[in-house]
Amino acid sequence: MAHINVPEGVPGIRSLVMFRPETGKYLYDLAEELLRGESPLSQAERELIAAYVSKRNDCFFCMSSHAAAARCLYNDDEEIVDDVLNDMEAANISSKMKALLNIAGKVQILGKEVSSADIELAKDEGATDKELHDTVLIAAAFCMFNRYVDGLASFTPTDPEAYKEMGKRMVQGYNLPVQQQS
Amino acid sequence: MAHINVPEGVPGIRSLVMFRPETGKYLYDLAEELLRGESPLSQAERELIAAYVSKRNDCFFCMSSHAAAARCLYNDDEEIVDDVLNDMEAANISSKMKALLNIAGKVQILGKEVSSADIELAKDEGATDKELHDTVLIAAAFCMFNRYVDGLASFTPTDPEAYKEMGKRMVQGYNLPVQQQS
Repeated sequence: MAHINVPEGVPGIRSLVMFRPETGKYLYDLAEELLRGESPLSQAERELIAAYVSKRNDCFFCMSSHAAAARCLYNDDEEIVDDVLNDMEAANISSKMKALLNIAGKVQILGKEVSSADIELAKDEGATDKELHDTVLIAAAFCMFNRYVDGLASFTPTDPEAYKEMGKRMVQGYNLPVQQQS
Repeated sequence: MAHINVPEGVPGIRSLVMFRPETGKYLYDLAEELLRGESPLSQAERELIAAYVSKRNDCFFCMSSHAAAARCLYNDDEEIVDDVLNDMEAANISSKMKALLNIAGKVQILGKEVSSADIELAKDEGATDKELHDTVLIAAAFCMFNRYVDGLASFTPTDPEAYKEMGKRMVQGYNLPVQQQS
């Protein structure tokens, strides 16, 4: 049961946004811009960063839902998502993407963990300043979303099918109207 | 020097928002709602939570600037801010505020660290669901802002006077127009 009186049976962040739509609006707007706005990183790559950081923060809800969204976006290559979550360095992704995920992993620990060497490695693989920026900000934002969802003990479904449906909806947009608590 | 090519000499998050105003707009909107929007927590209490979490995340820029903002808001009791940052449990604040800061500290570690006992303790001291919600979300949000600012190694002034001026501006509003990079 959640730590506060949110609508029952509504999973994850959605229940918190229904409890407090005033702040929820800005959280959804931010997620929409970070994950679906204009960026040199593809929508699939951004969902992968979100899932990767959420796994490292032990947030089952965000990890499962953003992994599901990423699987939708990688289409025929959907096993890439699970490969990255299981062993990022061994996954069949570009060296640039590995260097960016390495930075996202450092951000997950703490901002100061990102070293000049981590940045240089990514630049050597072709990462631009905008790609570096978006990687750091997405990773940082999921350090917020993960703590929000788990810090209030919001409802976390365990059925994989529930996340599959969620992933399909998420890739269509994050800032859709949320029904206010009556 | 920052890890990416942001405007030189502009401190902290402001330089990052100038580099990427598309995402910066949403970050400032969120900060404005969390720290200055309608809430059962006072603006001073919210700035104190922000400074407390930023100190725990070793983010000198956010800690110093939000501590400066909190000092402005506590007026004659400005030493409360430094007392909380030095030893929260010994500071001259209410038992309810101590219980909320304890939760903010747990969120700083990881969402799942917040236990039912932490929540019950705060409720016993009179904390409402909305106060618990806002505490968790503000703490989580500073786990993002701190990582964003330090993860890109943005410019961190060391002069205390610079933060004093910053604090005075911050308590007037976060979502003021930012000059775009030309």
